[in-house]
Amino acid sequence: MSSHHIVRDDQEPALIIANGAACNPELLGQLLEWSPLVIVLDSAMERVIELGIKVDVLLGDFDHGFDPEIYKTTQFPIEIIHAPDQNKTDLEKAFDYLIARKIPAVNVVWATGRRADHTITNLTNIVRYRNLLKIVILDDHSKIFLLPNKFEKWYTEKTPISLIPIGVVNGIFSINLEYPLDNDTLTMGYRTGSSNSVAQDGLVTITHTDGDLLLMECFD
Amino acid sequence: MSSHHIVRDDQEPALIIANGAACNPELLGQLLEWSPLVIVLDSAMERVIELGIKVDVLLGDFDHGFDPEIYKTTQFPIEIIHAPDQNKTDLEKAFDYLIARKIPAVNVVWATGRRADHTITNLTNIVRYRNLLKIVILDDHSKIFLLPNKFEKWYTEKTPISLIPIGVVNGIFSINLEYPLDNDTLTMGYRTGSSNSVAQDGLVTITHTDGDLLLMECFD
Repeated sequence: MSSHHIVRDDQEPALIIANGAACNPELLGQLLEWSPLVIVLDSAMERVIELGIKVDVLLGDFDHGFDPEIYKTTQFPIEIIHAPDQNKTDLEKAFDYLIARKIPAVNVVWATGRRADHTITNLTNIVRYRNLLKIVILDDHSKIFLLPNKFEKWYTEKTPISLIPIGVVNGIFSINLEYPLDNDTLTMGYRTGSSNSVAQDGLVTITHTDGDLLLMECFD
Repeated sequence: MSSHHIVRDDQEPALIIANGAACNPELLGQLLEWSPLVIVLDSAMERVIELGIKVDVLLGDFDHGFDPEIYKTTQFPIEIIHAPDQNKTDLEKAFDYLIARKIPAVNVVWATGRRADHTITNLTNIVRYRNLLKIVILDDHSKIFLLPNKFEKWYTEKTPISLIPIGVVNGIFSINLEYPLDNDTLTMGYRTGSSNSVAQDGLVTITHTDGDLLLMECFD
């Protein structure tokens, strides 16, 4: 796999490679083409290096016998950040790092699969970064992001759209979904908007008054 | 893989094979040894048959060109249940089926992986079956179940334990966890109890006053 471009622009989304299941190399390659800054979490580095990817930042608590120092020369001028805080996941620490650098957006891969606790924590913790960082989590079957209170995007007919409330979400309205929402409340575990889809080619509008609502574009 | 035992006892947990990522054949084999009733969801049947498993019930909406009729002879005397209700997932319909048959417990495999919307829906929707059906979801890295208000189980030291609130969970106390909870509140997306572990060999006690709390035993 080719390394990413040398020209960097901090307005392009950064790319975080987390420590879950690897995605299709093609998806990773597409994201690397557009990602000016590549951050790898902890021991995922071993799998990333095998793919021939140039890494800008290696971040983790490095507490399972993983030695990041060996990458100082092979990946020069890599930045190595030892982040031992046990109250945050490595992914959250990487988000904090991007916010501190005033980078506005990030794509995240390898954040799902393998351990279910990590998957569900990674997917749901993005809600706390509302207004701080635009986060998109991607894997081979899914594209996931937090909805603003008013969301509009053009989709083709029958695109699968799942609306997943993180807790309780009130006052949800939709335009151009197959199963329309009309001042509905969704509650995780009890009533979710999974497996909806786009009614016809065109703009989809989803609004809600309060709560944290994830949109998942998923496909088999 | 050998088929499961002929002797049946509806007090043993049933086994549901859902339509996500396949698990390790070894895990599946262990569960089949103990599962008197095997239910397969929709087109997962095609992958299950390849493993030489004897199926008791095939349930789904069968709406993607999948024809269940061919299994009537090859898997005789299989029960085929056409469940077209679009307001429930096939997994929920299978839970309802078990409740109607007064089967008290079920293990679920292939419910995670692939599409993130299905994974998060399958994991979180089990909370609505409290007091109706004892559900355990398993994959190659995880064992997941809903906690009663008082939970006690013997664990070995350092067993990873993640506590995942589905919404808000109040009044959580723990005994024998590395990071103890003491009248704590956990809120999905904002404060979860992921990546805790057992302090020492012995009984772990976790109590909570209200809300839905999942326990995940996960390992890399």
